[in-house]
Amino acid sequence: MSDHSHYTPPLADMAFVIDHWLDAPADWQRIPAFAAVDADTARMVCEAAGDFCAGQLAPLNGSGDLQGCTLQGGQVQTPEGFAAAYRAYVEAGWPALACDPEAGGQGLPGLLDAALNEMIASSNHGWAMYLGILHGAYACLHAHGSDALKAQYLPKLVSGEWLPTMCLTEPQAGSDLGLLRTQAVPAEDGSYRISGNKIFISGGEQDWTDNIVHLVLARLPDAPPGTRGISLFLVPKRIPQADGSFSPNAVFCDGIEKKMGIKASATCAMRFEQAQGWLIGQPHRGLAAMFVMMNSARLHVGLQGLGHAETAYQLALAYARERQQMRAVVRPAGAAGAADAIVHHAPVRRILWNLRVWTQGMRALGYWCGHVIDLAAHAPDAGERARAAALAALLTPVVKSFFTERGFQLASDALQVFGGYGYVHEYRIEQTLRDSRIAMIYEGTNQIQALDLLQRKVLAASDGQGLAPLLEAFRAEAALPSVHAATLHNWCGKLAQATDALARDAAQDAELPARAAEDYLRLIGTVALAFAWCRAARVADAAHADKRESARYFFDYVLPDAEHWLRLVQAARHPVAPV
Amino acid sequence: MSDHSHYTPPLADMAFVIDHWLDAPADWQRIPAFAAVDADTARMVCEAAGDFCAGQLAPLNGSGDLQGCTLQGGQVQTPEGFAAAYRAYVEAGWPALACDPEAGGQGLPGLLDAALNEMIASSNHGWAMYLGILHGAYACLHAHGSDALKAQYLPKLVSGEWLPTMCLTEPQAGSDLGLLRTQAVPAEDGSYRISGNKIFISGGEQDWTDNIVHLVLARLPDAPPGTRGISLFLVPKRIPQADGSFSPNAVFCDGIEKKMGIKASATCAMRFEQAQGWLIGQPHRGLAAMFVMMNSARLHVGLQGLGHAETAYQLALAYARERQQMRAVVRPAGAAGAADAIVHHAPVRRILWNLRVWTQGMRALGYWCGHVIDLAAHAPDAGERARAAALAALLTPVVKSFFTERGFQLASDALQVFGGYGYVHEYRIEQTLRDSRIAMIYEGTNQIQALDLLQRKVLAASDGQGLAPLLEAFRAEAALPSVHAATLHNWCGKLAQATDALARDAAQDAELPARAAEDYLRLIGTVALAFAWCRAARVADAAHADKRESARYFFDYVLPDAEHWLRLVQAARHPVAPV
Repeated sequence: MSDHSHYTPPLADMAFVIDHWLDAPADWQRIPAFAAVDADTARMVCEAAGDFCAGQLAPLNGSGDLQGCTLQGGQVQTPEGFAAAYRAYVEAGWPALACDPEAGGQGLPGLLDAALNEMIASSNHGWAMYLGILHGAYACLHAHGSDALKAQYLPKLVSGEWLPTMCLTEPQAGSDLGLLRTQAVPAEDGSYRISGNKIFISGGEQDWTDNIVHLVLARLPDAPPGTRGISLFLVPKRIPQADGSFSPNAVFCDGIEKKMGIKASATCAMRFEQAQGWLIGQPHRGLAAMFVMMNSARLHVGLQGLGHAETAYQLALAYARERQQMRAVVRPAGAAGAADAIVHHAPVRRILWNLRVWTQGMRALGYWCGHVIDLAAHAPDAGERARAAALAALLTPVVKSFFTERGFQLASDALQVFGGYGYVHEYRIEQTLRDSRIAMIYEGTNQIQALDLLQRKVLAASDGQGLAPLLEAFRAEAALPSVHAATLHNWCGKLAQATDALARDAAQDAELPARAAEDYLRLIGTVALAFAWCRAARVADAAHADKRESARYFFDYVLPDAEHWLRLVQAARHPVAPV
Repeated sequence: MSDHSHYTPPLADMAFVIDHWLDAPADWQRIPAFAAVDADTARMVCEAAGDFCAGQLAPLNGSGDLQGCTLQGGQVQTPEGFAAAYRAYVEAGWPALACDPEAGGQGLPGLLDAALNEMIASSNHGWAMYLGILHGAYACLHAHGSDALKAQYLPKLVSGEWLPTMCLTEPQAGSDLGLLRTQAVPAEDGSYRISGNKIFISGGEQDWTDNIVHLVLARLPDAPPGTRGISLFLVPKRIPQADGSFSPNAVFCDGIEKKMGIKASATCAMRFEQAQGWLIGQPHRGLAAMFVMMNSARLHVGLQGLGHAETAYQLALAYARERQQMRAVVRPAGAAGAADAIVHHAPVRRILWNLRVWTQGMRALGYWCGHVIDLAAHAPDAGERARAAALAALLTPVVKSFFTERGFQLASDALQVFGGYGYVHEYRIEQTLRDSRIAMIYEGTNQIQALDLLQRKVLAASDGQGLAPLLEAFRAEAALPSVHAATLHNWCGKLAQATDALARDAAQDAELPARAAEDYLRLIGTVALAFAWCRAARVADAAHADKRESARYFFDYVLPDAEHWLRLVQAARHPVAPV
């Protein structure tokens, strides 16, 4: 029996995407911040990250799920080995990977941080939750914190010595942050007193780090209602004193959730009782201060979908090669026994091909998203930065929603390969399925992402060209001679038409975009995958001939999805009665 | 906050299906076995069954999931209250519902047993597992047991005093029963000594009944290899003696599985060590003896998909009416607050409509399947019995696969309505999602069902008319004047064409059916749903006007799926390379 905790970092495919599909080293060369980074650097970083994930995190995944977390007397106990793995992570310097060298970081591209995060999600999603916000909190504080706050907290976050949390959600305020009630009252010393209850706080309490840096959304006394009255505060679990000691802060963990998955992650209900906090950014501009972390946060959740799909593929493929049941219609050469490995059965083979082309296609798109976020921040030319930012704005909701929905679906498909064994813990795939489900919900539900894409980004553009940055990228690929270029070109036209029709019809039917948004996002995602495979087949050299076979499978068996999403976008013209 | 363990039996919709959609009472009247059953009987049975499920089973669902089962010293402890609920079930006479009156049963139609089973699955799938095989074991023994075996065991099964298990699967033999190795050696007294290991045995050990009646597949010493050498044996946990006492049998529970869901069900690894057993039916004809229970077993698994969908719909609807987040694009009349109930938001409303039309459409189809199984057994005319049997043979794999796949998907859709709360245990929907997943696997994986449908039933018919019984039923509905008749008629033509094309192309490409089977089953399932909604809209009187609105939603938003499955069936002509 194969070792079910085994994880093989997909280094070859990562290198294909980074070096060939993206040709990222060429971009790095012309970007001053990344001039020292080349393909070899990227490969070495991915290898070392893969070693860490496969060696330290994957072996703890199953036991972490079974043990879960416990809360006693306000203290959280995380599963065995989890804190030690984090210490090793910190000692290896991983938290600093993509941080500014001036703040003590290594200054590597966010693209490599994306690769790292994919592998962490593949190996141990529960563990990943404690540092999910680490880079985002760094970026937020780096961009909006006062010098004093930065001096005190930034080095601790860059090193990973302290971990941050993001305290947004309240019982009555989930997707609608405008409803949040946590109060912040100014104190005489320039700090604030924060009072309120927050829920679903990952790592709100843990036994990994000496201190926890909570980023808390709250309302000042003079705040206007709704989302325009929300401010952001830094509230440490323990307040650092000038002499290096700490004084306790009034921050309490009242409970941890019993969840479907990511059981190794302590999802905390937090209570702030006149806790001392410090304002980050401007009063009432808390959401704007958080905005700096939004694109990469969404990308990283999307990469969890990719990471789960990769794990599901690896698990299902290994099992299908081993498990013998019945004779295949087309038996492998030399087969003589009573049964063949199920990898030879057509229904299983289709599941495995789906897993493969989705996973590899999502990797290309996800890393592309990571790369354009890098370009938006660091490209030398302002025009290029703006174009990259526009592209990132469109790509991130697609990556977040489309990948997480499909990661869950693919995990379920992979589970089916195992038959009854798929339903038991030992084979790990059921955990992948459970863990993957959360990514469709947090960091903005997939429904919210779809509305963001269609309403706020595509349709709100006054020139009707909201989708243009993405369409242009697709069309540029379709203009290059390749096997699948004509098909891609055809789909660019259908996408443009469908978008124009939505814009036109929405003028008469204000609710139409809300009815169409999810299927519209899936349509864009599927065409984006077609773009990914068209390009992959084009740039694949002899060493990557399998990419052409995979592209063929994608265009034969997966692209038909696009027709379906298009038809459902059109169906959305029908009104939907109250339930 | 609503009570999350609440379950409302869908009595009104059940009555609509039984009385109007099926017009079952008219059939019962002309069937001697059911002549005493009428619409009122059916309604009273459903009401009483619903009371039992809502009152006794649903309240234990969440606690059963959290507690799970334990195994100590070979003894299984089931969750608190489970055994008592079973005693109440037995005392109320529910096991005897659809059993032959000559064997002590109530002789009611299997259709009503189907309704009961839907509600049990909705309320507590884990609990249901212990009696999942109860009626099937009765039917098997009733049809194939010796008089001595029947005298000793049948009354105990009809009353529910003893519970049976079905011991098929072995570690190396899951979908491929031909690989099973358990041995049966004849003893001098006419019984057999059974030795071997079985896995995934639901209720293989439990603390509910004094005895457990294992039905065990095993090989006699002279058995030919493969599925033609399998015999069926009755192996009691404790052997009843002439004086009313018991002697222990060599049947041992070695372990219970840690599973994704249905945690209240003890899924046992069983060891038979020269255990005493008795042959049921003919030597080497064990699968034929089991065949008598197959259709209703598959139907009941399909009904679990329906039951989970119903629960998911109820939970999501209740939550969506309560939870306030953001203002809807079209606000409800009089809305003035900062937010509206999310039931008014279009993306949520679409999920709820999907849940509703799928659930109610599946109920019509599932009950139809139950009714034709009744007709196949009891219709006075041999020709009608044969036609009903042919229809049941086509419907059961569709109901099993299509309903369970969609039950899982709908549970996931419903979970999304809850946002983060959906991922925590308290709101129950995550349990529904986990529990529902097993139904896609057991009782023949959905892939096996699809191959059964397309290869063994549709394409194997020598006259090319394998799908005819189902198509004729659809066409008869499409021939009656109604709003959606033309659309249904159109789809009957496409279905016939697609089937003919598969038959033709399969002659040149032996693997084609195996590549196309799953999407072909989904295509048939979707057209069957169109049939269900076409008929529902036609037969709905003024009291059921909502059926017409639901049918409209189905034809606008769900039927486009059929185009997709058709396109994928056509895509399956493309060969799929080895992985």
